[in-house]
Amino acid sequence: MMRRASLDLSLLPDGGVRWLDASGPNADIVISTRLRLARNVVGYAFTGRARDGERLRMLAQVREALAGIAALDGSVLVRLDDCSLLERQLLHERHLVSKELAGLDAQHPVRTGAAAILGEQAGVLINEEDHLRLQAMRSGFDVTSAFEAASRIEQALGDRVPFAYHREFGYLTACPTNVGTGLRASVLIHLPGLVLTKEIGKVLAGLQQMGLTYRGLYGEGSDVVGNFFQLSNQTTLGRTEEELQDLLVRVVRHVIEREEEARRVLVRDAGYIIEDKLWRAYGTLRYARSLSFDEAMNFLSGVRLGVGLKLIPALSVYTLNKLLIFAQSAHLSHTEGRVLSEGESNVARARYVRQVLATEGSGVE
Amino acid sequence: MMRRASLDLSLLPDGGVRWLDASGPNADIVISTRLRLARNVVGYAFTGRARDGERLRMLAQVREALAGIAALDGSVLVRLDDCSLLERQLLHERHLVSKELAGLDAQHPVRTGAAAILGEQAGVLINEEDHLRLQAMRSGFDVTSAFEAASRIEQALGDRVPFAYHREFGYLTACPTNVGTGLRASVLIHLPGLVLTKEIGKVLAGLQQMGLTYRGLYGEGSDVVGNFFQLSNQTTLGRTEEELQDLLVRVVRHVIEREEEARRVLVRDAGYIIEDKLWRAYGTLRYARSLSFDEAMNFLSGVRLGVGLKLIPALSVYTLNKLLIFAQSAHLSHTEGRVLSEGESNVARARYVRQVLATEGSGVE
Repeated sequence: MMRRASLDLSLLPDGGVRWLDASGPNADIVISTRLRLARNVVGYAFTGRARDGERLRMLAQVREALAGIAALDGSVLVRLDDCSLLERQLLHERHLVSKELAGLDAQHPVRTGAAAILGEQAGVLINEEDHLRLQAMRSGFDVTSAFEAASRIEQALGDRVPFAYHREFGYLTACPTNVGTGLRASVLIHLPGLVLTKEIGKVLAGLQQMGLTYRGLYGEGSDVVGNFFQLSNQTTLGRTEEELQDLLVRVVRHVIEREEEARRVLVRDAGYIIEDKLWRAYGTLRYARSLSFDEAMNFLSGVRLGVGLKLIPALSVYTLNKLLIFAQSAHLSHTEGRVLSEGESNVARARYVRQVLATEGSGVE
Repeated sequence: MMRRASLDLSLLPDGGVRWLDASGPNADIVISTRLRLARNVVGYAFTGRARDGERLRMLAQVREALAGIAALDGSVLVRLDDCSLLERQLLHERHLVSKELAGLDAQHPVRTGAAAILGEQAGVLINEEDHLRLQAMRSGFDVTSAFEAASRIEQALGDRVPFAYHREFGYLTACPTNVGTGLRASVLIHLPGLVLTKEIGKVLAGLQQMGLTYRGLYGEGSDVVGNFFQLSNQTTLGRTEEELQDLLVRVVRHVIEREEEARRVLVRDAGYIIEDKLWRAYGTLRYARSLSFDEAMNFLSGVRLGVGLKLIPALSVYTLNKLLIFAQSAHLSHTEGRVLSEGESNVARARYVRQVLATEGSGVE
């Protein structure tokens, strides 16, 4: 059964961030895998064209249908249109809802009826660009398991709600790039080796030729910081779910190999320089009194590479993943109990990072 | 009685670096005070014009005369012309002998008869540019005590050896700028506040108008690194010893006040920025795997400022002074037991600094 929450993050199963636990395959390079299926419900206009009442009716119908789905047992329904700005930012920073659904874009405030069902590593976004986005997240590089989780929800829900489907095109979506399977799989991947060896440009160009695209830490339109990239399939039309998964798995596996090779080259050709650079990043994080978000991400990138290369021992990938999320501005404001200015946020970020590293990195030398 | 040493640094009284102990006045800003009196012995050509035999005879005469001087009890005689290059570098890095006496300038190799008598915070350089340079060093800003120590040696020695003296000019020296009292007093001073507030140019110009001059960490011809300056009187002619001391004391006291004022301004106008900058310097020293000498000095400068401002607690000025000396290349080679390349030296320096800070800065957070 779903519970209704205003927003107490501690009520979210695992705080909604079990995918951070670094237990998955290739977790030192791939932070997480996310898979979503876009679906629309017959009988309603697409979200962008629907009136408030129509979106609320759609939400009501879907809530009722979702109530009996075992895969969502224990999940929480969050009405974004009931949340404060800070709460919506928090959910976005946890990668649980899209920027659009959270209404964080000044030109597009949060929609009436915007909601999210957040379960253990899987959930549903409601009244996003499409009526429904069924999503699943996994630690590390694990497309298959994410697909299975999203599919389980999709099948159970499809038995109760009629999805808009066209014999020739497949599932219909608001944006043509999602028509067909409605599937988008993406991995959040850390590629400092390819950036440092300056091979990243070639690799990204290759990706695009293979039908994949890349984005920054927060998806569409966001900058790349800290050498974190989101890689995903560009189109969904004309291929089966299996083909799309195969493509992503094949290409990402290749990128992982290129990254591993770049790291070997770095250690071989510039071992001391790299080691020094990564330890300086650690030292700065460990003692700085003010850190901007981009700076923190860049230093964390260095430390993560150091941990991956076993140059910085006694520090877990989980600790680094946690810093990635909890050192963000809305999380810091949440912890401090008030909305922080940018300067205050930088000071709070440095304090938080210091405390975590002093505690969880106490053996680091 | 003096002992004869090949060169075992541990035989030097206090290793020759008691002036590092940060016990003197204003020790957070002034590392040390050095005072030297230039004297030449009647009956010998100036060092630069003397033959080997003449320098050796002068050395023999002075050694005999020095033997009974109480102020030099327990001191050690070091024949620079008997020392290896590394040993001469070591003595120079400890600020015990000049670059010229140590023969470290490629164009001027070590002279036959070049020697130093090294006692507890006082000593004599023999066959330097002048026959004799009687010197004393003190922790912090303490011109009077340094002058008294050098004078005690000067008087006792003057009773036994005829110094070249001219009724009108005073003591004669090889270089005209030293004629007169032969006195040069200098303080090694740390001025990061004036550098950060960009007032240093004005202050240094003012110094020069008052008849003082400034140099880098290693005296004449050396660059300023780490915001460490050596301030000293420019000429000795036409003023008494007391006037020269008064001038130096007055001007340096003024510089100290300007530095303290600059530090107050920094904390008032840019507290967080400064605190962050200084802690990052600490973090880098604490974890870097390779440090060039200039880099280390610059980061140490930041940490020293942090300690002075009480922003970085639990770290002593003595620890920082020690790093200033023992993180130098010859000292690192000495510790490692072999002559290190520049790259090896940078790695050894980072390791040494890390170990000292991990031990002596263990409460630093």
